[in-house]
Amino acid sequence: MSTEQQDDELQDEASTSVTSKDDTSQTDLLEQIVADLEAGNHETIKNTLEETHPSAVANLIESLPKEHRNDLWEAVPEEQEADILTYLHDDARDSVIRGMEAQELLAAAEAMAPEDLAEIIDDLPQERSDALLEALDNDHRSRLEFVLNFDEDSAGRLMSRDVVSVRQDVSLAVVLRWLRRHKKLPPHTDSLMVIDEADHYLGKIELSDVITCDPDEKVAAFMHPDTFAVLATMNEHEVAGIFERRDLISVAVVNEEGLLLGRITIDDVIDVIREESERALLHSAGLSEDEDMFAPVIASAMRRGIWLGINLITVFAAAWVIGQFEEALDKIVALAVLMPVVASMGGIAGSQTLTLTIRGLALDQIAAANVRWLTTKEFLVGAANGAVWSLVVAFVAYLWFGSLGIAIIIGTAMMLNLLAAALSGVAIPLLLHRWGIDPALSGAVILTTITDIIGFLSFLGLATIFLL
Amino acid sequence: MSTEQQDDELQDEASTSVTSKDDTSQTDLLEQIVADLEAGNHETIKNTLEETHPSAVANLIESLPKEHRNDLWEAVPEEQEADILTYLHDDARDSVIRGMEAQELLAAAEAMAPEDLAEIIDDLPQERSDALLEALDNDHRSRLEFVLNFDEDSAGRLMSRDVVSVRQDVSLAVVLRWLRRHKKLPPHTDSLMVIDEADHYLGKIELSDVITCDPDEKVAAFMHPDTFAVLATMNEHEVAGIFERRDLISVAVVNEEGLLLGRITIDDVIDVIREESERALLHSAGLSEDEDMFAPVIASAMRRGIWLGINLITVFAAAWVIGQFEEALDKIVALAVLMPVVASMGGIAGSQTLTLTIRGLALDQIAAANVRWLTTKEFLVGAANGAVWSLVVAFVAYLWFGSLGIAIIIGTAMMLNLLAAALSGVAIPLLLHRWGIDPALSGAVILTTITDIIGFLSFLGLATIFLL
Repeated sequence: MSTEQQDDELQDEASTSVTSKDDTSQTDLLEQIVADLEAGNHETIKNTLEETHPSAVANLIESLPKEHRNDLWEAVPEEQEADILTYLHDDARDSVIRGMEAQELLAAAEAMAPEDLAEIIDDLPQERSDALLEALDNDHRSRLEFVLNFDEDSAGRLMSRDVVSVRQDVSLAVVLRWLRRHKKLPPHTDSLMVIDEADHYLGKIELSDVITCDPDEKVAAFMHPDTFAVLATMNEHEVAGIFERRDLISVAVVNEEGLLLGRITIDDVIDVIREESERALLHSAGLSEDEDMFAPVIASAMRRGIWLGINLITVFAAAWVIGQFEEALDKIVALAVLMPVVASMGGIAGSQTLTLTIRGLALDQIAAANVRWLTTKEFLVGAANGAVWSLVVAFVAYLWFGSLGIAIIIGTAMMLNLLAAALSGVAIPLLLHRWGIDPALSGAVILTTITDIIGFLSFLGLATIFLL
Repeated sequence: MSTEQQDDELQDEASTSVTSKDDTSQTDLLEQIVADLEAGNHETIKNTLEETHPSAVANLIESLPKEHRNDLWEAVPEEQEADILTYLHDDARDSVIRGMEAQELLAAAEAMAPEDLAEIIDDLPQERSDALLEALDNDHRSRLEFVLNFDEDSAGRLMSRDVVSVRQDVSLAVVLRWLRRHKKLPPHTDSLMVIDEADHYLGKIELSDVITCDPDEKVAAFMHPDTFAVLATMNEHEVAGIFERRDLISVAVVNEEGLLLGRITIDDVIDVIREESERALLHSAGLSEDEDMFAPVIASAMRRGIWLGINLITVFAAAWVIGQFEEALDKIVALAVLMPVVASMGGIAGSQTLTLTIRGLALDQIAAANVRWLTTKEFLVGAANGAVWSLVVAFVAYLWFGSLGIAIIIGTAMMLNLLAAALSGVAIPLLLHRWGIDPALSGAVILTTITDIIGFLSFLGLATIFLL
């Protein structure tokens, strides 16, 4: 994807380019930095980092083990430290902050927006966060404390207080003059907030209307009819949904009394969306949502060990079920060979239904009204696939072991297990959701425990009844 | 979350409100619509839909089985049809379009932006898309054909051609006058594109600068120094990454010659991000990325059946491995009871490493330079957890069956399987990625096949060697 064939004319423009350092592929940058780190070219690294966007530097840090992180951090330009810390995931950020002097951390904290600093303060060990709060000057501290009043994951935590507001009874000409005096608008200002004398939020007016409409008209005439605000206590997931549904760039945040508190912009919302999708992915494997690729081995092993321990209990439960059929297993060795087939197919089919239901819940597409339809449909899909694959499995089992009895029994057990899988795949996430538990985290473990147990129970149970 | 305690003052403002119909919860809306559908209250439904945002209506349609979808679609206001079709996922959209008359589809098509129509045209059956192209007027057809020139999933497909551009040598006052004549700017216009006489893209100037800066200055003076453009051929995944890294609202799209073709705005990018995260979730269960919650049973069963068939092959491979140890299983029934424990723990541990590696690849955090570090770390995590849980499993096995031999063998087999799982969890996604296969789709199946086989092979193999 080269852009070198451009006109000379374009090349002459020193101030613009259609590619830039930031957009050399992240993996190439990583290769280069690792090579420089290993060769000890600290000057080269410094130069590279100066031309690299802080989010890309954060990404680099997360791609390196601890010892190299420290080396890289040394080379980071001081004025970028605050931004980079903001972009890092929690665990990787902890590992960087642990190596920072109090003075260095204070400088970074003072360069951050209060909403970003609030997120970091929450994760610091108590003594460090106390020391940092102590060291902040009054202005920074009071702004931070305002943000800390709101719950984590609430709109109040996402918002910036850097917002331009105007009265509804002034003319556009006055607004334009006022803006011109203001010089620099906050980033992503697509509209101005309209307030009354007591700072109540009334609506917003688009910047493009301020420019294109008759300057003698009043602000009130162009206030967008369907503008609305979110409450500072609203959950960030709901806020993201509103941005998506309404294709917003920014939204006003108000308190219960309707007073304008601040503004949430779409770049914060993108972060929320990314975090949610990462969380769903990592939770599905029982990983923490901030899992650091290069976390220390022992810390990482301990966190994952909990998940392995939970799984061990469930698999011993399944083994216990098998143990109840020792007599059958002792007499017919084919049962031991074939039993994983029944359990595994149930787990796969069930996880398809489970995943579909989890997505439906995430999109708010499942309510009491359509659960019955969904259950019926999944049951029928399970029955259709059960019919087909039970026959295939029965046929293969017959060819392998030459026993019609085993063939009929494995086919029947598979059918039963696929039907149970379909019902569990709908019921488990709905129940977890109702109980306030994230179905992405524990849904799959519970489901496969059920399909394992029903698979072993039906196959070995039927064999005990009919073949012994 | 009530906002009713607001000042009367605010309530009087008819043109603004802090909540609106759109924001009654989607599930409540669903309950209400289903109740109305079942009661046959078509007028009520019509009124409800008129006040509901098209994206919420699309969501409702996806929450209903086929017969109710048609009823709901009848009640959709004609002028909303185009928007709703745009918001629907592919499969649900197909089911709606199948019920539309040619004339109705044409009207919706003409009301759509060409980039949205292009997406729909791609999925239509050949004869319908031909008929639709035929029926479009010249203007719509030529704009559509321009978009269809670009690959699906490319920047060219995401961009809108509705872009405001200015020359660099004019003054801000001229730009302001020109904008005022223009009246309405395209949505999400945060900046104007700067071009030369031959339409080459030079950079952009922020709308807020146009307002706040000295009107006698030239555009060139405020052209943003680090603006850049994306090539129309760039993949949409890369485009999304650039928006995130640079916190952009919009970006210019150029061709190889540097000519300005259009503009991509952040709302399109949010859709790309959402689609990617949905794809990852659905692929992990072997589901199609457009899987419709209420797809017809047979269609749904057939698509999922393929995945079950693939899994059946892998589980029969594992069963075949077990079958090689019939003699051991025949003599020591405890082996049959315990063997799922070894296989399952390997699968769980491996999927943790696999998920972490897949995330690392998605974030461009893995390159040749750090693969060795990642492998070493995951191997050590596997060893640490292997040591702990092997001892636990060996201890439980000893208590259960009273055989020191079986205890030692199951512990050893578990250790081997967890180490193999760690190595496979890194290697499989890297190899799939290098071969251009989505590791989210097939990684888990391949991994569990390996951990099943190594689990059974090591446990039953060691038992055959040492216990028979």
